[in-house]
Amino acid sequence: MSRALVDNAAALVTRMRAGERRAIAAVATELERLSAAAPALLAAMQPYLGNALVVGFTGPPGAGKSTLINAYLKQLRHEGKTVGIIAVDPSSPVSGGAILGDRIRMTAGYGDDGVFIRSLASRGYLGGLSPAAVRVIDALDAAGKELILLETVGTGQSEIDIAEVADVRVVIAAPGLGDDIQAMKAGLIEIADVLIVNKADREGAERTLQQLLGAQSIRASDTALPVLKTTAITGAGVPEMAMAIAAAGARAHAAAPQLRRRRRARYLIARAAADIIARRVREGGEGPLEALADEVLAGRITAEAAALRLLEGAS
Amino acid sequence: MSRALVDNAAALVTRMRAGERRAIAAVATELERLSAAAPALLAAMQPYLGNALVVGFTGPPGAGKSTLINAYLKQLRHEGKTVGIIAVDPSSPVSGGAILGDRIRMTAGYGDDGVFIRSLASRGYLGGLSPAAVRVIDALDAAGKELILLETVGTGQSEIDIAEVADVRVVIAAPGLGDDIQAMKAGLIEIADVLIVNKADREGAERTLQQLLGAQSIRASDTALPVLKTTAITGAGVPEMAMAIAAAGARAHAAAPQLRRRRRARYLIARAAADIIARRVREGGEGPLEALADEVLAGRITAEAAALRLLEGAS
Repeated sequence: MSRALVDNAAALVTRMRAGERRAIAAVATELERLSAAAPALLAAMQPYLGNALVVGFTGPPGAGKSTLINAYLKQLRHEGKTVGIIAVDPSSPVSGGAILGDRIRMTAGYGDDGVFIRSLASRGYLGGLSPAAVRVIDALDAAGKELILLETVGTGQSEIDIAEVADVRVVIAAPGLGDDIQAMKAGLIEIADVLIVNKADREGAERTLQQLLGAQSIRASDTALPVLKTTAITGAGVPEMAMAIAAAGARAHAAAPQLRRRRRARYLIARAAADIIARRVREGGEGPLEALADEVLAGRITAEAAALRLLEGAS
Repeated sequence: MSRALVDNAAALVTRMRAGERRAIAAVATELERLSAAAPALLAAMQPYLGNALVVGFTGPPGAGKSTLINAYLKQLRHEGKTVGIIAVDPSSPVSGGAILGDRIRMTAGYGDDGVFIRSLASRGYLGGLSPAAVRVIDALDAAGKELILLETVGTGQSEIDIAEVADVRVVIAAPGLGDDIQAMKAGLIEIADVLIVNKADREGAERTLQQLLGAQSIRASDTALPVLKTTAITGAGVPEMAMAIAAAGARAHAAAPQLRRRRRARYLIARAAADIIARRVREGGEGPLEALADEVLAGRITAEAAALRLLEGAS
């Protein structure tokens, strides 16, 4: 199978480019698993990579991310755009990791060849994109999807990953977050390209909007941050959101495709290196690490200084 | 000043132990800044370290964490326990990083000498405990506070840090998170020692509780996970939550104090190492890293393999 795939990589990519759903699924799976066929597939895909706009959605649970992504998907299809969706669920023995994806699939319908949805399990606790998820971006990109939407559950590592991997970051808030919106603002403003107040028909939406509008004035970047109201269940505000994302996307696409892909690869490497170090440190037990930990506990050196010594002594 | 502090470290620690608020504040500040006086202070504090129970609160914005911590604080003071609180706000030029702490301070009152609250800015985007925040734990611990409560805004890095640093992890959910609760569950169950459904007087609380109760059956640990309802604004369920935290705390305290502190130091070192690597990778640009990134992009090696080569070549 895999041998055959290596030989037929070009043919498979051609079928994928023609929109054949089974071909896209097969390529996504090979990349996800980083099988022996992956290098040949990526080589055949090379001319078609880097065109898709990767749009990441983040925001706390309960903000209505899935419903808004559904409404946005409808808008994009209305505009004739092709769409790939990668939904990353926390690994779950109960759900099999497909809650978010299934929710979108139910409403988007199976019949539309302009949409391809892949659900993936996240890695480790508190979510996070797996390297596999990032590789699936390439599959959907080469398949010609013009937009690739990333959805996670919006906690822990998944928020950080979305911020690093996407070309355009959409941060979704909603009324009912209470004063937490004030504290969230400072963190979110640094990553957002578009800020959304969803559930705009609810009480308190205007207040939430005003709180977020204040964020614009303290933004370091000279690009204005669009802050928009949407009501995902009726679709109100969604065309405006689509325009704001497109505008942010045009700026992101000023960078060469290869540079954007390389940024993602670098992030994957950094994440993997951090995991390796965390594992080493957690398992630890050897003399040098214990000694460093005790130096830190005694206040004689900073954790940063200890980390530098650890990295220097790593090889 | 700092010279005088080094000479008078023992005297300052004695005053701190006697509950003198200004002494606690001064020690916390020296440790926070890791000043020249920090080693002498930590040496003088050594006999008093490792007794406090560190309770971390996490959960999405809007779950009502601050209100619940306030209610818990009242319960603890009613039981005669002394409490330290570390509130970590995302760094904000607007708030000065003291939204969460101020909210608790307003209700807890300034007059109570059994409570010490320190607000700290988080580091980087999407929150996260600074190493300074972890060092402040030692100050409140040596001051004799029996419980130290950690509050963050509950997104991104802050959730991960709380999970790693606390002895007991309290995860707070609330009705109104919609189906996200299903997806959150899998991630949260791995870190929770106590699961709370706050705003239990709201519609949908029972459904949320039932969804979380299902989490117990898939838990790897053989310790049952308490899942409790609270209504923070009335205080309902808070005594039961306090008992559940105390029971989880008794298990956590079975580990030697030095081991628990060392676990925190190790985590600080791992986080610092990850930051150093992320910075190197982001700045990158040199030949070896670019070459590794291209190998990953071509699907010839995994990000993990690239990270290993990077770590080996780091020194």
